[in-house]
Amino acid sequence: MSDDATAFVPGHITGFFSAHPDDDASLAGSRGAGVTLSQGVAVTVESASESRVRLDGEDVSMPPVEDVLDSLDVTATVRAETDLPLGAGFGVSGAMSLGTALAANAVFSCKRSENDLITLAHEAEVRAGTGLGDVVAQARGGIPIRVEPGAPAHGTMDGIPARPRIEYVAFGGLSTAEILSGDTTALTAAGEAALEHIRDEPTLDRFMQESRQFARDAGLLTERVESAIGDVADAGGSAAMAMLGETVFAVGTGLSDAGYDPVVCDVHPAGATLNHE
Amino acid sequence: MSDDATAFVPGHITGFFSAHPDDDASLAGSRGAGVTLSQGVAVTVESASESRVRLDGEDVSMPPVEDVLDSLDVTATVRAETDLPLGAGFGVSGAMSLGTALAANAVFSCKRSENDLITLAHEAEVRAGTGLGDVVAQARGGIPIRVEPGAPAHGTMDGIPARPRIEYVAFGGLSTAEILSGDTTALTAAGEAALEHIRDEPTLDRFMQESRQFARDAGLLTERVESAIGDVADAGGSAAMAMLGETVFAVGTGLSDAGYDPVVCDVHPAGATLNHE
Repeated sequence: MSDDATAFVPGHITGFFSAHPDDDASLAGSRGAGVTLSQGVAVTVESASESRVRLDGEDVSMPPVEDVLDSLDVTATVRAETDLPLGAGFGVSGAMSLGTALAANAVFSCKRSENDLITLAHEAEVRAGTGLGDVVAQARGGIPIRVEPGAPAHGTMDGIPARPRIEYVAFGGLSTAEILSGDTTALTAAGEAALEHIRDEPTLDRFMQESRQFARDAGLLTERVESAIGDVADAGGSAAMAMLGETVFAVGTGLSDAGYDPVVCDVHPAGATLNHE
Repeated sequence: MSDDATAFVPGHITGFFSAHPDDDASLAGSRGAGVTLSQGVAVTVESASESRVRLDGEDVSMPPVEDVLDSLDVTATVRAETDLPLGAGFGVSGAMSLGTALAANAVFSCKRSENDLITLAHEAEVRAGTGLGDVVAQARGGIPIRVEPGAPAHGTMDGIPARPRIEYVAFGGLSTAEILSGDTTALTAAGEAALEHIRDEPTLDRFMQESRQFARDAGLLTERVESAIGDVADAGGSAAMAMLGETVFAVGTGLSDAGYDPVVCDVHPAGATLNHE
């Protein structure tokens, strides 16, 4: 048992998805595709007599993180640090849940496997209604395709072999919980169609194209997002909307070329990992 | 279509395994566990009228690499560079096959998914008799547990959540093809037992302990390897034998502490990836 341990979990932007709820949280999840980012969340766990969760230096209420600690039957101080925007579709709560699982396992010698820890974090996210597919994508890295929903024992993953530079602009947040608890019929039909197309042609270009189409078909585009995507297209680039946030992301220099002042990062080559011992 | 592309594939040391041959190369494979290494193979693919494979500046015959190019229906010059010892249990042929698949897909716009490319490389290794489990482990990174054998559509992976420093000393090679084509009954029984134990307790300590036990039970220890493992234990460390090579690896500073002059690297956090665009 060490005093503390830190895990890094990449951010994750979903381009398109379909929702697959289930009473069993390990079976629930989403199909879809997204990009993991070199920007992410560093999560440090330290043993404490009472659990406490801090994000960028402030106390926060984060039910899925508390759920993960409960599942491992430990109490700890969890400190998360991130440069990612909050509530804007970057998977910060998934990253905090997964990072907590990995770091707490190391601190408390819980002897769980990576799949077990991913499962705990995935189930916690599903139960809290904060996400359906971020955790399994963040555990994998790269540009993950969620072929079948659910935790590792049930879900199936594939990936698009590419490592482009990614730019993004975050205008603001959208409530994941609100959208996922509403009528998701149109969204799921659009997501299923996009997934079929990306499996036929698992390329970066096609991923961006299907993501744009999805946002349109699912009725999730806001005015600011639609306008930025159009600006990038006018400048010869390719952009789409992050699910679920009022965020536009582009490959290469798409947003810069269109005159925006984006955050620049890369596709992250690895899934969530403990920091080097 | 680009002129050339480069992929990096981590080295892979298997600690224990059981062999699971099958006439269908995508079903064939091995169960077991190992560590992927920050040392690996950089594979560059460039379009050419006739295929040619070079390793560290010399022409080599590498049937699984040629098989991968044939499967993608392309001809290319493949240039591999590595600091890993050859034929000593580091998965260099698996790395070359997988790196070729990833880089060739990028150069020739083959539009295959990551699972498709891993499958091509895995099948090529199985057909050539050069490996059964390296490719799927190298595609994953970390400390992979091969729970079920085979390519991604059939196999199941898990992992041990740890990122220690790794040291190794390579005394020489053992023939993978020779051992895998002989009687593997004792080896497979020992490998299955080790896998059951590591699944009960997926920790680094247990992995090293099971790997040592496996080498002994499978009758693969050579005198030099047995003596080095003993020296590390006497110095308070934990070492095991790489399958299949006359190579000893240790966690942390195990070999240094025992007076050896090992190569030092780390567990690689990522699976095989294209270089950044």
